[in-house]
Order: sequence, then C-alpha cells, then structure tokens
Amino acid sequence: MRASELFMPTLKEDPADSEAVSHRLLVRGGFVRRFSAGMYIFLPLGWRVMERVNSIMREEMNAIGGQEVSMPTLHPAEVWKETGRYDEIGPEMFRLNDRSDRPMVLAMTHEEIFAWMAGRELRSYRDLPQTWYQIQLKFRDEPRAKGGILRVREFLMKDSYSFDIDEAGLEESYARHAGAYDRILSRCGLDFYRVDSDPGMMGGAQAHEYMAPSAAGEDRVAICPACGYAANTELARSKANAAQGEEESGPREVATPGQKSIEQVSDFLGIPASSLIKTLAYQHEDGFVLALVRGDHELRESKLARYLQHPVRAASPDEVAEVMGTDVGSIGPVGASVRVVTDEALSPRGPAGKRGYVVGANKNDIHLRGVVPGEDWETEFTDLHEVQEGEGCPDCGAPVHLEQVIEVGNIFKLGTRYSEPLGATVLGEDGKERPLVMGSYGIGPARVAAAAVEQNHDDDGICWPRAIAPFDVYMVTVKMEDEKQRELSQELYTRMTEEGWECLWDDRQERAGVKFKDAELIGCPVRITVGRGATDGLVELEARVGKEREDVPVDRLMARMQEVWQAAP
Amino acid sequence: MRASELFMPTLKEDPADSEAVSHRLLVRGGFVRRFSAGMYIFLPLGWRVMERVNSIMREEMNAIGGQEVSMPTLHPAEVWKETGRYDEIGPEMFRLNDRSDRPMVLAMTHEEIFAWMAGRELRSYRDLPQTWYQIQLKFRDEPRAKGGILRVREFLMKDSYSFDIDEAGLEESYARHAGAYDRILSRCGLDFYRVDSDPGMMGGAQAHEYMAPSAAGEDRVAICPACGYAANTELARSKANAAQGEEESGPREVATPGQKSIEQVSDFLGIPASSLIKTLAYQHEDGFVLALVRGDHELRESKLARYLQHPVRAASPDEVAEVMGTDVGSIGPVGASVRVVTDEALSPRGPAGKRGYVVGANKNDIHLRGVVPGEDWETEFTDLHEVQEGEGCPDCGAPVHLEQVIEVGNIFKLGTRYSEPLGATVLGEDGKERPLVMGSYGIGPARVAAAAVEQNHDDDGICWPRAIAPFDVYMVTVKMEDEKQRELSQELYTRMTEEGWECLWDDRQERAGVKFKDAELIGCPVRITVGRGATDGLVELEARVGKEREDVPVDRLMARMQEVWQAAP
Repeated sequence: MRASELFMPTLKEDPADSEAVSHRLLVRGGFVRRFSAGMYIFLPLGWRVMERVNSIMREEMNAIGGQEVSMPTLHPAEVWKETGRYDEIGPEMFRLNDRSDRPMVLAMTHEEIFAWMAGRELRSYRDLPQTWYQIQLKFRDEPRAKGGILRVREFLMKDSYSFDIDEAGLEESYARHAGAYDRILSRCGLDFYRVDSDPGMMGGAQAHEYMAPSAAGEDRVAICPACGYAANTELARSKANAAQGEEESGPREVATPGQKSIEQVSDFLGIPASSLIKTLAYQHEDGFVLALVRGDHELRESKLARYLQHPVRAASPDEVAEVMGTDVGSIGPVGASVRVVTDEALSPRGPAGKRGYVVGANKNDIHLRGVVPGEDWETEFTDLHEVQEGEGCPDCGAPVHLEQVIEVGNIFKLGTRYSEPLGATVLGEDGKERPLVMGSYGIGPARVAAAAVEQNHDDDGICWPRAIAPFDVYMVTVKMEDEKQRELSQELYTRMTEEGWECLWDDRQERAGVKFKDAELIGCPVRITVGRGATDGLVELEARVGKEREDVPVDRLMARMQEVWQAAP
Repeated sequence: MRASELFMPTLKEDPADSEAVSHRLLVRGGFVRRFSAGMYIFLPLGWRVMERVNSIMREEMNAIGGQEVSMPTLHPAEVWKETGRYDEIGPEMFRLNDRSDRPMVLAMTHEEIFAWMAGRELRSYRDLPQTWYQIQLKFRDEPRAKGGILRVREFLMKDSYSFDIDEAGLEESYARHAGAYDRILSRCGLDFYRVDSDPGMMGGAQAHEYMAPSAAGEDRVAICPACGYAANTELARSKANAAQGEEESGPREVATPGQKSIEQVSDFLGIPASSLIKTLAYQHEDGFVLALVRGDHELRESKLARYLQHPVRAASPDEVAEVMGTDVGSIGPVGASVRVVTDEALSPRGPAGKRGYVVGANKNDIHLRGVVPGEDWETEFTDLHEVQEGEGCPDCGAPVHLEQVIEVGNIFKLGTRYSEPLGATVLGEDGKERPLVMGSYGIGPARVAAAAVEQNHDDDGICWPRAIAPFDVYMVTVKMEDEKQRELSQELYTRMTEEGWECLWDDRQERAGVKFKDAELIGCPVRITVGRGATDGLVELEARVGKEREDVPVDRLMARMQEVWQAAP
C-alpha cells in the first residue's frame, strides 16, 4: 500500500490521557483513537493488526476442529435470568428495554446463548464433541475504563464453547484449547504464562488465564521459577515466611496511647510487623465478619469472598462502631461475638508455626499481647493474604516471584453450570438424558495487540512481532522528486507485492526525517530505504529491532530481506 | 471439510414461522437459526456464506481506495444530539443508560461517528478524498421483525463514508461507489436494479437503492423497460393514464344516499372510479391537511410527508369530525377552510388533462359533481399517488413496470448534513475552513445472501451462485463401508483441496438418500457422487442448476468439473 493513499494520522505528541505505553504508541502511530470513555476506534493500521491476530486465531481454532459461527449481541433478558446471571451480575452489564418494554441485555459473554443453541440442536452423544467459536463484540460497563485499549467497554473477543458428554471429554476439549491458545499467543509473538485463576462470574470448577507480563497490566501473578507453579494473585497460595518477636503469654493488655496503624504499634512496642495481627471488618450477605491477616500481609478480598461464597464489602465506621462498640482502629477478635476468619499464615499449626501475636483489644489506646490465634478466639483458618514476593511456593517451597501482567485470554471448565439451568441435554449412550458438559474459552485480539506493544517497543516506537505487524516492510523513498529513486522504489514495490510481501511504501511528499520517524513509530519488522544509493543499485536494509543497517545490492535484496525477516521476533 | 465434522443441522420440516422462501431454506439447510424476535444465529454454513460476501465487499471497496476501520457500536447520546437525530429518530433506535446514568444509543448507522472522526483527523483539502469503511453491527428496533434474516433488529452492514472538499468530489466518490456496488452485487450473482430512492432519515440531497427483485421483498420499484428509469415507489413519478366519464359543470350536489366508498359511489352514479376524487385527512406537525388523489389511485404517505417536510399520520374520526363537521366518508375540499394538497394527476394542466370530477360534499349522503381541481377550491398540486403498473414513465412516457424487491444496499449524497452540525471542516485551497462534503453507502451481507436464495432455488433447495456458495463442491460417498468408494473419495478430496476447490465431503454414516437430499438443500454448485462406479474409475458429476448428470472417468474429473463450474451461475 502507498502511504500517500493510507489514512495514517501519526502524532508527534503523546495523547493527554495516556496511561500505558501501548496506548501512547498506538495513538501516536495512528492505529487507534479514543472515541469516548472505554470506546475505541481502530484506524486502518490498527484494524490490519487486529485482522492479523484474528486470522491466526481462526487458523488455530479450525485446526482443533472449531467451527465459526456468529451470535447476536443483544439478548432478551430471559435467557440470562434462567442461569441466574441476570441478577448475579451488577452494573457491568448494560441493560435496556426494547420498544415493547421487554428487558434486554448487551452480551458480556455468550455462555447462555451457546448453551441455549446446543440444547436445541444437539440430540445425542453421537453429535459430540462440538467446538463452536465466533469473533464477536462484547460489552462490559467497566467502572474505570482506562489504559487505552486494555480496559474498554466494547471489544472484540474470540470466544469458543466446547460441548462434551462427560468430564473426561471436557478434559480433552480443555487441553485442545490450551494447546491452541499456546500456539496463538506464541505465533503473535507474546511472552506469556498460563496461570490458575478464579472462575469468577463464569462459575465452574477450574479456570486458567493467559497472562502477558507488562507493567501496564492490572493483574499480578505468582510464579515459581523452580517448579512452574503459576497463579493469579486473586487465588495464588503461598507458604508465609517465618515471623519472630512476640511470645505466647496469654492475652495481656498493654497501653498503646494514640497508636492505631500497624506501623505505629510496631514502632511503639519495638516488635516487627509480622508479630502483629490486622483486624479488618467486612459485611456480606450473611452479616458481619472479622478477617485477620498478619501485620506484614495484605488481605486479598477475592479470597475472603470466595471463602464466604458471597461478595464482600468493607464495613463502614458506623457499622463497626455499632457491632464492635469501638473504633475501626481498635478492633480485635478476642471476646468479639461475631464470625472471625483468620488467615492460615497465622495458624499455630501453619508453616510459620508461630504462636504469640499482638492484636487490637476492642478498647481505644489498648492492645493485647501474647495472643494465640485459634486458642484465644474461636475462628476458621483459610488462605486470605495476598502472596508476597519471595514467599514459599505452595507446591515446592521455593521462593515465588510476582509479576504484573495483562490478561489476554482465559479458559474455563464450566461443567454443567449453564446446561443444567437451560435444560441443554443430550441422550447418553445408555439412552438417558444428560446435561452437556461445557467449557468456554476467550481471547481478546485488542489485548493481544496491546500486550505485544507493551512487550515490543523502544524509545522510538513499536517493534511489532512479525506475525501481527500491520505491514511486513516499510519502504522509505527519500526523495520522491528523484526519478531514479522513484523508479527503483516502484520496481521494488511491484516485486515485493508479487512475492507476497505486504509493503507500506512511504511515497509521501515529506522530508526524509518525517518518514524515518513514522517508520520507527509504526514499527514494521523490516525497513528499506531507497536513497542516493539508488544510482549505484544499492538500497539500505534495516531490521526494526536492533536497527542494524546495511547497504544491499538490489539483486540481493529479496534474499537478504528473507534472512532479516527470519531473524526478526 | 468433512460433513462428519461439520455442524450442519438440516431439517426435514419447514420452520413454523417461515414467511420467505429464503428463510425456509436457510433454516432447513442449517445456515441460520432464529434466536429471538429479529435476532439470528449464523451457523457454520451460514457464516461461510457471509464471509464470502464480506470478502467480495472488501475486495471491491479496497479497489476503489476504501480503507477498512472499525467503530464502536455503543455511542454516547451527545453526538446524536448534535446532529438532531437523537430526537428525530423514533423507537427504532435502541437507547440505554450506562452505569453513571449517561444516555447511550446503539448504532443504527455510523454517519455521526465517521463525521466526528473526520472532523478531528482531517486538516486540509490535501487530505481528501478519503473513503473509510467497516463491516460492523447495526441495531434497529424494527416494529415487525420478519422474513427471516431480511428484516432483523441486529445485523452486519458494510458501511462506508466518503469525504470530499466539494460537490464535484462527492459526485466522483458517489460514482466510484456506485461502480463498486454494481460489481459486488454482480459478483454475488444477484439480479438487481439501482433505483432513485428517498433519503429518509439520512437526509441529504439524493439517494439510490440497490434492489433485488423477489416476491419476499418489502419494497416496490417502478421500472421503465424503454428508457431505464427506475425508482422506489416511495418517490417514483409517473404520467397518470387518462380518465373519462365526468364533465365540468360547476359544483352541483347529487344525492348519494348511503354511498361512501369509491366503489359504491362509482357504481351508484355509473361513472368510472377515475372520475372520482378520494379525500384523505392527515395530521402533521403544522396541523390538519386534506390530501386528494384520483379514485383509482392510492395515496403514498411518504410522498405527502416529503412534500410537507414532516411525518404525517391519518387523522382520527374524531379529529375529522371536529375540523370538517362531518364523517370521514363524506369529506371534500370544496368550501373547506383547511390546507388542501392535490395530486398532480388531478391537475387540469396535468398529463390526464381532465377537468370534471365527483367529490365529497362535506354533507352525509351528498356528493358534488362536475368540480374542477384548483378552480373550485384553493390547492397546491404535487405528486402524491403511488405509481401504478402501466402508467407512463416520467422520462419517456412508455408504460412502467412494477416489481417487488429486496433492498440490499443504498447510497446517499449527504453533502454537509452531518459535517456542519458536528463542525467537521478542513482548510480549502483558499485557506478558508469548509465543511466536509460527505457520502454514505451501505450493503447488508445477510440481505445479499437471502436475496441470492430468493432468486436461486428450486423445490429441492438452494442453488447458490458460485461466488457465495458455502462450498464449491458437495461430494457424496454413497457407501462409506465400501473400501473402494471410501479410498477414491479420500483421494479426490485431497486432490480437490490441493487444487483450491472448497469441498464438503459427505462422509457421514447415513443413507445415500439422506445425503442427496442434504446436497440439494444446501445447494453447492457442483455435486460429485462416488458410488458403484468407483470400481471402474467412474464418478458422477452433477450441476446443481439443471441437474444434468454424467459419469466421468476419474482422470478427467478435474477438467470436467472446471467446465461445469464455469457454466454455473
């Protein structure tokens, strides 16, 4: 394509609202534009990248027997009511009424509709397994749409759904998808992990996420370099490090005038934070609960919610005062007549094995020393604290490493979570009706593209992995007025096109400096420069990564370009 | 692809709600399923057809310099308020609020967003012309979703938008699009007309529609076989045929006891309906109006609305009684102190040239005879009646022909209808800001597919035009248990795939009769049958259209298939 005919509005300045590197570079490079909060426009260059990701996804989905279909995105509320998600899901779901005042929703995902169709169209175990996929819009009303195209309210997703007769079949479908997802992301040039994850609103037994390491990510994963354990910190477990400093003594009061925070109390008493207990108050559907973690740990609310099987929210100061009779900063578990859940790192029988701690006394300016969790108050132990860098791997004990990541895909074993409420059954081999055993699987192509930019850029712009670059080659003609340069460029452009290279020919009437800057910003893997050397039959070849330049005789260009291409990421 | 691995749920019975042939055959052939009112699922076969139409559209759009982008479908209401369409458009527009109670709409079309972007990104006449397109969802809350995939509430559309510096530029962009649309629809195998049409909610100066003749269509066009005049009956003009039977006499009352309808009065007085005037009462924004057409003509409301520049509705009997002081069946223009609009066919200076008519007298059981339109009452003449079969072409006078059609595409000269309210300007050559001159252009791939089915089928199923068939070849293996047949089929399947044929191999464990029926229903252009002849190296070749069968030696199959293919529609 000729740049003079391409709408590629590159920018010299960063966008005002830029947060992530990918956002900054994709806007500056003329790939995307923000239309409104969480709504993005894909310009021609951006859409080319998306189409390349899409076609890789199609190839790999077809290779595992996936069949492409297309589902509506506007759904009558009924089908979401049948599975209970109409009520379970909060304001993330866009809701509306049609002209007859019939309630509708915009698809956040498509489990309901695929299960609905499978229930109607599949008759018998002989029709199984089936894998259906689509590349279709999803809508989620994110409270804080940000990070450019990383967290948006409308986005394309490749979502697939597998249908099997039993759990063993699901295991196979799930493994096939995991393989396809590995290949898709590898082909797109991403570094990524597959990690254990929380099924969340999808329900089901087990789930994994595909995570691309990037500082712009909104998730964190815990990785064990020794054994390969990998999990989202939403649910990652760990062996807490040992803690010293406080001995068991039976609860005894100590005056801590004006000392409220962990840091204050730790300083005041001269003991490490790991000898203190943080008492946090939550409300959930069944009432008020205290959650305890060690002073040097952070509570992970998603773990508490999963343990309680209900969403939770921090109790307000008024609620705390009413139930506990004291300030938020002074509460503690001893003598409290409420449900208490304690992080297992505090268990005397846990890996840290420690018994004595300092905890709030439910009186202002007083703490209790020498308390023993599970002995000085009745409690349930469970995993509540967020894994910390260097804690022990739950599987092998080696120190885990934490990494900021972008979620680019996820896979769920749904089992019969959807098929049962929707009555999606088939006849089994024994002649009995059985609910379909389902899996669901998603990859967001825009997230893949953004993660690729996060992982592949330098100060001058993007360094696209070759499989998803908008063009393979960026050819700069230094002086379009120069007949020699123009003719050689035309000849090379024709030859490249014939040989299957996608070439963006910068034939604009612009200064060479502008063209070079745009070439680096847009980031095609290979750059060719047709300049003064044209008279001697020489052009300059440069790989975007590494930026090594060489003059190549025209008759060797195709061969040499192939080599540079093969060496590109 | 192997049929044993394809999800192709063909049905023996017609769907209960079937209205159009295309709906019946696309559901029975396993191409689509109805999910909900006006919401359709594309199954693998249906999606393959859509993708073929989409790629033809992409090729032709790229060939005229179109650049593919992708726009959000969920829009903040503001941008639709700026152009006034938020208020102009009625319940066809889906509306909702986001989590912050901000009003949003679902895209019915994308003029606003493209104009918004053009205004921000284009700076100067040097950036023009631009043609941007997308293949993106549209949402319209149709009051009567019906006809299968012909009239739905959510659908894909290829929509494009051209931006030029002036009207001359728009003319060129418009002509380029018209050419591309002709090629797209021809390549998709459709019979179609390009006709003048009413810009309707799009506004703008001129518009054309692409119409595919079909009894299932909801539109009608008037065509002049002599000179090529073609227009939607919404606005088609015509020279009314002459009328006889009543002479001018000055208005004189005649008793017509109990005679209300045109037919009754015509019979009672013994004069042709064309000598009578129908008086119809309407309400519009500026008030009450009488509209008059000849007794043998029908009023076309869209013409009245366009003339009055406001939507109209029939006045209620109470409203008529209040204004006219008599029954709906007795009203007439003589002596009425309201605005009267008269069809130009009734003009004494019109093509029919007649002067004397019979009209309601605003008294029950009385008519007026011998009245002269425009003389016996004050009136405006304009084109109001719907063109009739055999009336004179407005251009050449030859008899016009009416045809029922499906609208598959439309093109609009928008001018500055959107760029002005949205402030989308560029610098002209004279250094002054000028509003962009826009065109917009749409084709619905599902309508194209449905129209192709309407125009290409027989009693046994679909006969797909070859460019958009889901597969090129349907190969039936009569007996999969027969090793000879199975092996020959496998060999042919491999060879066809290598040579670029898309082959659907019916390798299912089904009776041959079932396979043949499905082959005819699904309607691929060529069928190959591998049966008993396999032992002698013979297969049967059959074109879907015409169904001529021939036995072909295996070594001549590829060559012969090519010939049959070329002869297919």
